[in-house]
Amino acid sequence: MFLPFKDHLKEHFPKVEQSRILVAISGGVDSVVLAHLCKKANLDISLAHCNFHLRGEESEGDEAFVLELADALEVEVFIESFETEAYARSKKISIQMAARELRYHWFEELRETLDFDYIFTAHHANDNLETFLINLVRGTGLEGLTGIPEKNGAILRPLLSFSRAEIEEYAHNSHLKWREDSSNASGKYMRNKIRQEVVPKLLELNPQLLESFNNTQEHLQQSAVLVEDYISALFPRIAKQEDYGYSFRIKMLKTIPNVRAVMYQLFKSFGFTEWNDVYELLEAQPGKIVYSKTHRLIKDREKLLLTTLSSEDEREYEILAEEEVVMLPMGTFQFETARELSEVGKDSIFLDQNKLKFPLTVRKWEEGDHFHPFGMKGKKKLSKFFKDEKLSLPEKENCWLLCSDDEIVWVIGYRADARFGVDEKTSTILKLTFTP
Amino acid sequence: MFLPFKDHLKEHFPKVEQSRILVAISGGVDSVVLAHLCKKANLDISLAHCNFHLRGEESEGDEAFVLELADALEVEVFIESFETEAYARSKKISIQMAARELRYHWFEELRETLDFDYIFTAHHANDNLETFLINLVRGTGLEGLTGIPEKNGAILRPLLSFSRAEIEEYAHNSHLKWREDSSNASGKYMRNKIRQEVVPKLLELNPQLLESFNNTQEHLQQSAVLVEDYISALFPRIAKQEDYGYSFRIKMLKTIPNVRAVMYQLFKSFGFTEWNDVYELLEAQPGKIVYSKTHRLIKDREKLLLTTLSSEDEREYEILAEEEVVMLPMGTFQFETARELSEVGKDSIFLDQNKLKFPLTVRKWEEGDHFHPFGMKGKKKLSKFFKDEKLSLPEKENCWLLCSDDEIVWVIGYRADARFGVDEKTSTILKLTFTP
Repeated sequence: MFLPFKDHLKEHFPKVEQSRILVAISGGVDSVVLAHLCKKANLDISLAHCNFHLRGEESEGDEAFVLELADALEVEVFIESFETEAYARSKKISIQMAARELRYHWFEELRETLDFDYIFTAHHANDNLETFLINLVRGTGLEGLTGIPEKNGAILRPLLSFSRAEIEEYAHNSHLKWREDSSNASGKYMRNKIRQEVVPKLLELNPQLLESFNNTQEHLQQSAVLVEDYISALFPRIAKQEDYGYSFRIKMLKTIPNVRAVMYQLFKSFGFTEWNDVYELLEAQPGKIVYSKTHRLIKDREKLLLTTLSSEDEREYEILAEEEVVMLPMGTFQFETARELSEVGKDSIFLDQNKLKFPLTVRKWEEGDHFHPFGMKGKKKLSKFFKDEKLSLPEKENCWLLCSDDEIVWVIGYRADARFGVDEKTSTILKLTFTP
Repeated sequence: MFLPFKDHLKEHFPKVEQSRILVAISGGVDSVVLAHLCKKANLDISLAHCNFHLRGEESEGDEAFVLELADALEVEVFIESFETEAYARSKKISIQMAARELRYHWFEELRETLDFDYIFTAHHANDNLETFLINLVRGTGLEGLTGIPEKNGAILRPLLSFSRAEIEEYAHNSHLKWREDSSNASGKYMRNKIRQEVVPKLLELNPQLLESFNNTQEHLQQSAVLVEDYISALFPRIAKQEDYGYSFRIKMLKTIPNVRAVMYQLFKSFGFTEWNDVYELLEAQPGKIVYSKTHRLIKDREKLLLTTLSSEDEREYEILAEEEVVMLPMGTFQFETARELSEVGKDSIFLDQNKLKFPLTVRKWEEGDHFHPFGMKGKKKLSKFFKDEKLSLPEKENCWLLCSDDEIVWVIGYRADARFGVDEKTSTILKLTFTP
């Protein structure tokens, strides 16, 4: 079997001949063939091997094999060890996802620091077909059927047009050696079954399956980019960036044809799964909320509001003393002594220094909070104040309170409390400015 | 097995309870189950059966079976015979395509004339999954993966959420009778193989495959409508309707992101297959043409021109005498006698009646044609005239010539010939007006 690799490179990646290339190598047949083909094509390559330490001695054997291969090919080789399981645990992702992230992150780092032009990976047409079928079996959308692209930034996949059979035949005919991956990780069960039992049936129906599948992939990728282009063109018309995330004017959404399809595209990357609930927000009562694991979509009066679910909101921050500038996650507090009152914006207030008890605290509001709004007599529930000020839910949630001895000093950005203000007895006036 | 048909109808097609419905029935298990379910749900149905006369006695048996079924269900039945093979031959399409066209055309006719509200067909989830896989095997694009929709105008498919297994189990448990289709038409080979060998493997990997596939289908359909919406929004910006078809300004096309993907969407319905050639037209020399079976895409100086391939162009038409109005396929010729010359537009000329020899002919131009352009001395090649007038290829091809004794009298819409014009010896002036 002749693998027309050089012609293929010329046609698909005409620039690689004069480039420095990093070839990702596992030691398996695909990447070994890729390295050999590159060497035969006189490309300027180095190898990069990740040791994920997931298969004990076998992982060490892979590493040793790659070192020998680099020696035999007379090319430079980079090897890096990863604590894959610990990383997966800490990021709460699967082992496969972790390996993927670690791998591509390291490749990119190598590429940047050592001035490689491209990274080659050995994905082939069957990989894409298998992924397509796995996603089909699990249920998916267009994004799950488009597969790995031949070119994605600096990452090129020069074997993507070739089939596993072609690559393996080349390896046998060239008497290459490689490492078999004995792992039977659960994630591989479905892939193996599809590889061994489903794809051969499809190949019986069309021996040119992989070629036609490459065309299918190209068409699907084109459709996918058009959907993205459309959403990108719509986005500035319908979405507005806010402190808390994005707002979407419902009236505007409703003018768009197939608004549900648009909403799916807009919100799918935020982890939503209950699509009927999401779609029904357009007609829902204000206050209705749909949650994903990471985000919320809130029906406000005339808008949909998209915000992150943040776990940091429950924390309380302290301002120990009136240092000149205090930096906290939500912004910067700057204290100055002032001789007299002056006109200021919403982000500044004047305080009587003697009325404050340090440390001050900065926290989010809670049900039951009340304060003495400056310019009003007596106290008011904070929830009532928010309602009168017509704050949306995320605006309320995004609002910070400055407190002294757990009494509200300032509903930051909205209103000062009268109790801490300057009066005839004030000896030291503090001007406090908040910059988000 | 309980088939929650009534609930499903309520949820998906709330209007059908008060409607007159035509159920398409082949006699196979799917449509028999559909008819029974409709009857049990107290819907107001009639049956419609097509006899395509493709399987001899079996076709007659199907027809007899449907008549009995209608009797048993106490519903009205319509039966129509089709000359399917002759129709396929005359339209140069496959037998399956022919049957499809004939069937839907007849259903629609019945619906309109007899005031049915909806047509029900018995497609189920496996049909869509099989079609998806068949198209995948053959090579396809998004349009080949989106499957039959649950609702398409007046055509509803109330079984589309159910699997073949559910339907067959219902048929067995309800002791229904139906006709087995023994046809082994070649088009069925692939479907049977996918049904019997591929789908069962996928079901082993995910017993809920058909449910997740229905979701996949919904997502893909949504993506497909967004692509259409995007192209519809772009179309008026980049395309201009012309007498000969459409023109697309290349400069404008080049401002669009992912222009190749857009071109694929724009031109795929015109039968083009050589996509690289199509894409390369953007940079090609003027005059380069890409053909489909029915259309051409022409690189003009600053535009792409899309035209149909018409076989009528080679005909010659005759104008036997100067009747008042002569109607021909390309337009209408109106002769009037005139007392004197007057100011006229491009669509009228004045002629000396005595110089004309009837019958006149109307034809397209040919290489080698020449004439004596009015207002110029001597003769000129028509090709040179077109070039000087900067006509595009389809404009040239769309241009008709009026001839007398095969001498050009009028390059219609562009220039009269001096030899047939009015002079001092003219006794009868004819004014000829052409309306396209």
